Amino acid sequence: MKVVKLELQERSYPIIITKDDFKNLAGRLKALALGNQAFIISNPIISRLYGPGLKTALSNVGINSVIYNIKDSESSKSIAQYIKTISKISSIDTKKRLFCVALGGGVVGDLTGFVAATYKRGIPYIQVPTTLLAQVDSAIGGKTAIDLASGKNLVGAFFQPKLVYSNVSLLGSLPARQISSGLAEVVKYGMIIDKDLFAFLEKNYQKILNSDKESLIRIISTASKIKAHIVANDEKETKGLRTILNFGHTIGHALETATDYTNLNHGEAISIGMVAACQIAQEIGILEPKVEQRLIDLLVKFNLPIKAKKVDLKKVYQAFYRDKKFINGKIRMVVPSRIGHVIVTEDIPFKIIQKIIKRSIS
Amino acid sequence: MKVVKLELQERSYPIIITKDDFKNLAGRLKALALGNQAFIISNPIISRLYGPGLKTALSNVGINSVIYNIKDSESSKSIAQYIKTISKISSIDTKKRLFCVALGGGVVGDLTGFVAATYKRGIPYIQVPTTLLAQVDSAIGGKTAIDLASGKNLVGAFFQPKLVYSNVSLLGSLPARQISSGLAEVVKYGMIIDKDLFAFLEKNYQKILNSDKESLIRIISTASKIKAHIVANDEKETKGLRTILNFGHTIGHALETATDYTNLNHGEAISIGMVAACQIAQEIGILEPKVEQRLIDLLVKFNLPIKAKKVDLKKVYQAFYRDKKFINGKIRMVVPSRIGHVIVTEDIPFKIIQKIIKRSIS
Repeated sequence: MKVVKLELQERSYPIIITKDDFKNLAGRLKALALGNQAFIISNPIISRLYGPGLKTALSNVGINSVIYNIKDSESSKSIAQYIKTISKISSIDTKKRLFCVALGGGVVGDLTGFVAATYKRGIPYIQVPTTLLAQVDSAIGGKTAIDLASGKNLVGAFFQPKLVYSNVSLLGSLPARQISSGLAEVVKYGMIIDKDLFAFLEKNYQKILNSDKESLIRIISTASKIKAHIVANDEKETKGLRTILNFGHTIGHALETATDYTNLNHGEAISIGMVAACQIAQEIGILEPKVEQRLIDLLVKFNLPIKAKKVDLKKVYQAFYRDKKFINGKIRMVVPSRIGHVIVTEDIPFKIIQKIIKRSIS
Repeated sequence: MKVVKLELQERSYPIIITKDDFKNLAGRLKALALGNQAFIISNPIISRLYGPGLKTALSNVGINSVIYNIKDSESSKSIAQYIKTISKISSIDTKKRLFCVALGGGVVGDLTGFVAATYKRGIPYIQVPTTLLAQVDSAIGGKTAIDLASGKNLVGAFFQPKLVYSNVSLLGSLPARQISSGLAEVVKYGMIIDKDLFAFLEKNYQKILNSDKESLIRIISTASKIKAHIVANDEKETKGLRTILNFGHTIGHALETATDYTNLNHGEAISIGMVAACQIAQEIGILEPKVEQRLIDLLVKFNLPIKAKKVDLKKVYQAFYRDKKFINGKIRMVVPSRIGHVIVTEDIPFKIIQKIIKRSIS
């Protein structure tokens, strides 16, 4: 078991990376004294697998719990689902002290966080991420949100959880494609800030793909440490530091939007986006070609794509223009200068970006 | 002009109490550099009176603005109105830096605050309260909320404004009954913490009722100072201090709920609630009867009721039980021990409370 601390004064919290069951979680919850009633938000598959175990563990420390399932898709991040969820909480709120538990991936985590942030002006919540992507990224840092028709994540709040409990044993049931998606974010941490992590991934990719628990704990705890450090120093993305986490995401998001979030998942889109960012870095002369090759080799080992298929180029350009990082005719790009280091720049000529986007589509 | 500072580290902000026009506000906004696009939320009456002046003042310092009117009633604090408002902002968001302005009373302030708290995970906003109630209470302290069918203020956030601009000249158009409603909250501050304020009100009630600007500035700035002090020391109502602001509100809220927010306005309800709290304090032997009489005399001078008419007693009891301050069979009451001092207790026998509620209804 590893414990990473996210330092934010009175909003600090631990991130636990473990392979144990829920007993340890329940003990920690009791010590945190968040309340004696837990509202667990999950999805049908995950709650069938892990719901009973979690409920029993909570019950053993005197915490009564209710599981509320939402559909496991982006459509659950709607205002309609948000209101339904809040109303459900309100109907079971017996005026004991109540807290929320997000038991699931990014969708469950984002919705649960926003529900907790806004029910009665904020109640405590914890994250129990069940995907690799959520364990290394979305469950950490307090970004909560739901979608509107006019845009994804348009409504939300920064609201930190009281605990993140990443249990690698929960990843056993994940499809290989979802593991790969999470690994793209781990590769990203290596590229932006940690060459040792990158080298570890290159050396141990086979063990990781075989779900070796110790290797998973190693990469998740390193990723958590990096994310915690960045969030601690730039909680609300106002100081520029948190921006480096967008490496691979600018073109990646455009690809996701252009394909309506269907043929590419998030990790696959940023895999392509990271390769594109390397090519942009080469075009402006700050990156050696061999770095791009090392990145591609690693992504391919993790079964991640380096080019997008069946994408309408015009739609990608449109999505790119509408991106919230596109300000006053300039787009903020994160580009690498070597493995473990990136720069943030708004000076990339749009012609170069267009050329690279074109090359990213096969 | 008076300036009161609300001290909350990096979330500190000034509360300006003035009789001047919007020129001073615009200059301050320019210095704060919140953005170059303002989304002003108001209601039709207020925006007709003060909208053009505010827009011109903003325009003179390079801030472009749009006014968005909502209905001036509690029904505007609905999820439907919230989504409409957020969608409107999203449609005019030209990726310049955007901030919100609440130009109105409590309904406008609560909705605007919650919109600002949650649009893109939080954008800056300022409060320009146009009712006495909002100037002395609701515009200060960052409590934002909307209502659900299952309860008022059930969805919300603590989110502090960047500035509160209380202009007493804007109160000129207020109906006398609304001025009285705000005065009930001012009397409350005197009762809970400031006997000098109470004495000032007793001595100057006629000038205040005549809208003498200097007297209004005196009481609004004193009220702002008290509220700012309490919020600075207990921002999220977790330390007990902010609880004293609920003096008169426990029975007051029950009366409002029982009458469906129709025949009593907020100030009138808490006027009755404060008298009831005095009677409870006498029942448990901590208050001399002459204090209740002084309070009643002052409330009557301000044309505030001391008993409720046409209220269904059963409905009041029901509302009382459902109150969020009613926890584990005990209700937290704020009761006075002298003018300028209250105690918070959960030990009042419910029989006493019932007896007093009964007496509060004529």
